[in-house]
Amino acid sequence: MKTLHSWLAAGTLAALTTTAVAEPENYIKYRQAVMKAVGGHMGASTQIVRGKVAEMDTLALHARALADLNADLLRLFPDGSDFGETKATAAVWDEPAKFKQAAEAARDATAAFAAAVDGGDSAKIAAAHKDVGKSCKGCHEDFRQKDD
Amino acid sequence: MKTLHSWLAAGTLAALTTTAVAEPENYIKYRQAVMKAVGGHMGASTQIVRGKVAEMDTLALHARALADLNADLLRLFPDGSDFGETKATAAVWDEPAKFKQAAEAARDATAAFAAAVDGGDSAKIAAAHKDVGKSCKGCHEDFRQKDD
Repeated sequence: MKTLHSWLAAGTLAALTTTAVAEPENYIKYRQAVMKAVGGHMGASTQIVRGKVAEMDTLALHARALADLNADLLRLFPDGSDFGETKATAAVWDEPAKFKQAAEAARDATAAFAAAVDGGDSAKIAAAHKDVGKSCKGCHEDFRQKDD
Repeated sequence: MKTLHSWLAAGTLAALTTTAVAEPENYIKYRQAVMKAVGGHMGASTQIVRGKVAEMDTLALHARALADLNADLLRLFPDGSDFGETKATAAVWDEPAKFKQAAEAARDATAAFAAAVDGGDSAKIAAAHKDVGKSCKGCHEDFRQKDD
């Protein structure tokens, strides 16, 4: 049986050898990086869907990444990541049912976009792309502070 | 056989019905979006690799996206996309051999990172992640204007 002393010693050793701990507040920087990737893929998709660049063969990778990144947005907002340098509003944590609905709308819209791209019908791709934009905007309006 | 007139008429019709043309300068906005996605995935990967967030199961998607986005960076820099609101330096187009080498280094480093993540060895993942950072930095130093 371990003594209190041996537990404490083990704890101290762990603290000395662990360089980082997955604290909730680390999720602020992490989710900003994830959202940056989402914004980048969405911007690139927009340029392709509108025919601004002839990169149709890369649309699938952007659509797949968007679907992957939006598969479970709730994971990006753990309890304890609601302070500091974040534009997430208190509503994220105060209205979990509504936020969950918005996150699921993003998940569904991006999955539908990826499926449309796989399908190859340009009208359906354009419509699904528009729906992704709506889901981004809808969630940001309610759960993200406005840019200055 | 088509007459000159019918070719011109067809051309006019095409111009009227096409809402956008893949002009080289459109690639400026497009590549900025792609690089934004690269930066987002790299930032997210850094947080995971350093153990700041417990999201190891999403590392593969970030690594795969990085490899996909860096598979052929030269495509993002066509002739005629070297002016306006871009931080790309003239060296991109003036030193194509050197730029190609830097683009291939990014391709190889991100592919190796994705392979390391698939392999699951944390020391190899950390080393490969560091190499990706070096390839980003190396290319930006020579081919991208410094931020203000």
